[in-house]
Amino acid sequence: MREFLAVDAGGTSTRAVVVDETGRCLGFGRSGGGNPTSRGVPGASVAVQAAIAKALTAAPSPASIELVLLAHAGAGVGFHAEVQRGIAPLGVRAPVVAAGDLLALFASGSPALDGAALIAGTGAIGGAIRDGRLDRVVDGTGWLLGDAGSGFWIGHHIARAVVDDLDGGPVTRLTGALLAGLALDDDRTLVNGRPVVLGRLVHALYDLQPVELARFAPLAFALVNEDAVATSILRDSVSALAALLRRVRSFQADGPLVFGGSVLVEGVLRLSPELQAPLLDAADGAAPIAVADGLVGAAVLALRGGHIEVDEPLFTRMQSSIRTAATTPRP
Amino acid sequence: MREFLAVDAGGTSTRAVVVDETGRCLGFGRSGGGNPTSRGVPGASVAVQAAIAKALTAAPSPASIELVLLAHAGAGVGFHAEVQRGIAPLGVRAPVVAAGDLLALFASGSPALDGAALIAGTGAIGGAIRDGRLDRVVDGTGWLLGDAGSGFWIGHHIARAVVDDLDGGPVTRLTGALLAGLALDDDRTLVNGRPVVLGRLVHALYDLQPVELARFAPLAFALVNEDAVATSILRDSVSALAALLRRVRSFQADGPLVFGGSVLVEGVLRLSPELQAPLLDAADGAAPIAVADGLVGAAVLALRGGHIEVDEPLFTRMQSSIRTAATTPRP
Repeated sequence: MREFLAVDAGGTSTRAVVVDETGRCLGFGRSGGGNPTSRGVPGASVAVQAAIAKALTAAPSPASIELVLLAHAGAGVGFHAEVQRGIAPLGVRAPVVAAGDLLALFASGSPALDGAALIAGTGAIGGAIRDGRLDRVVDGTGWLLGDAGSGFWIGHHIARAVVDDLDGGPVTRLTGALLAGLALDDDRTLVNGRPVVLGRLVHALYDLQPVELARFAPLAFALVNEDAVATSILRDSVSALAALLRRVRSFQADGPLVFGGSVLVEGVLRLSPELQAPLLDAADGAAPIAVADGLVGAAVLALRGGHIEVDEPLFTRMQSSIRTAATTPRP
Repeated sequence: MREFLAVDAGGTSTRAVVVDETGRCLGFGRSGGGNPTSRGVPGASVAVQAAIAKALTAAPSPASIELVLLAHAGAGVGFHAEVQRGIAPLGVRAPVVAAGDLLALFASGSPALDGAALIAGTGAIGGAIRDGRLDRVVDGTGWLLGDAGSGFWIGHHIARAVVDDLDGGPVTRLTGALLAGLALDDDRTLVNGRPVVLGRLVHALYDLQPVELARFAPLAFALVNEDAVATSILRDSVSALAALLRRVRSFQADGPLVFGGSVLVEGVLRLSPELQAPLLDAADGAAPIAVADGLVGAAVLALRGGHIEVDEPLFTRMQSSIRTAATTPRP
């Protein structure tokens, strides 16, 4: 039986599986954040090794692995070579091949070779897939230059709306929620022509890395339909994501549509049908397939790397086998 | 004759004058950036000392100065104490008193005790003045949290519009202008699903401090009426500044309105009447008084610090005398 290792190295967790050519999952392992950009190469490499070591405990033999497929955001920076060195002591001698997170995410939702993927987590990015390859990327240019509609974008708009409220602008319940989250007293006494709390909030927010504003995004989802400002921020986020999807679809109109990322899957797709409507309109009839991560896709790409055609039955079998392994408590 | 020293310590230059109680300018000096926040306290202090030393060369005697008025953004952080120490070797024994840039700017345009000021340079801030004091500040919360319509805001929107153009969005002439400004070749070859130039541009822009994006603002003013995207960015900037002005006016509806800052005075006020209209509407009948800096205002505040009432004739005399000194080449 031919065996493959597939790794999905994400920003907050890393997952690895050993699969065989029939789609059976022979081992599963999970560890911490394994993205080399956000975590740093040494820390990310250790996380990937840890996930692989766990996945190998139940697998027949590390030496029989034919290929290691490593999926992560920002693939192409040489991280796979670092991982190659790191897993040699585990007895894995197979070559490590990198793949982008967009392609892995798409392949987690469908075995089709053409289609589109949209991810909105901290950032927002879309990809047009053609002949099983990433043909066109849209956005994903980061918090300063792009990522409209993303978790950062929502958190940033929340921060600006709260600052504006304290500065005499429209009142919003996001203010109380954000101040509580930052443990700031709501002291509106004017000092030098400004409410005391505003100065303290501005200080606290500039002390963060800008991208950390993404952590406030859940406040808007929690207050949707109860607060006009929160609702309006989410409405604008959905519009921005719809525009991104339309752009991606202009590059690839055919095939299935796969959605990923916590903001999109756990946030936007749980909003009311009315609030989601612009995004579903942009999907233009295609029912989006939501996936939690790119692990199944990494396994699909691993098999394809071994020139194994992944058809619908093999895909479904592998998806179900990996899901079972990932949700079964270890003995 | 009673004598006063007034200093306007700005981000790019510092100006100092010696004035007497009749509004006569007895000495003028100019030096580099003297804002303690942007330049750092030691460098800013040296700049202020240099401007004062020049202003004192033509003045009767440093010991006869009664009061030093130091106007700068972010007043209240103790910079005046540093300046006090720094100018002792110059023979100045008078106390140094700090004032905010908003108040100095307002007093540069009018001797009134009530009114409003609006500044748009790199940032954007408004102030309501009442009884000769700053009563309410609006915005000025910086690039991340506020400053809508400012130089940063315009530059940021230009950067995002160019990234969007290269990513398949609306075409704009800002793209050619920005790429030329950054000496980047417009290579649209797709690599990993992205135009090569897009990756390079994103890199170059993240290498800047975010606030440095303000330096691209002139590109929009240069292309206004020739490019729809540039025009739309400036239209939105004017709207944002109009909203800021309306907010300031909600705190102080009476008195004159003073405008300052390079983006407002040298940019927005030179746009076509049609593009400026929303801002002039927000001024609600008051003709804005545009000023170049807060130097005259610092002198007004210095005299007021000596309990001298600055009426319209004294104000006009001082304004004209300082202007002559500032524009007369040194012997």
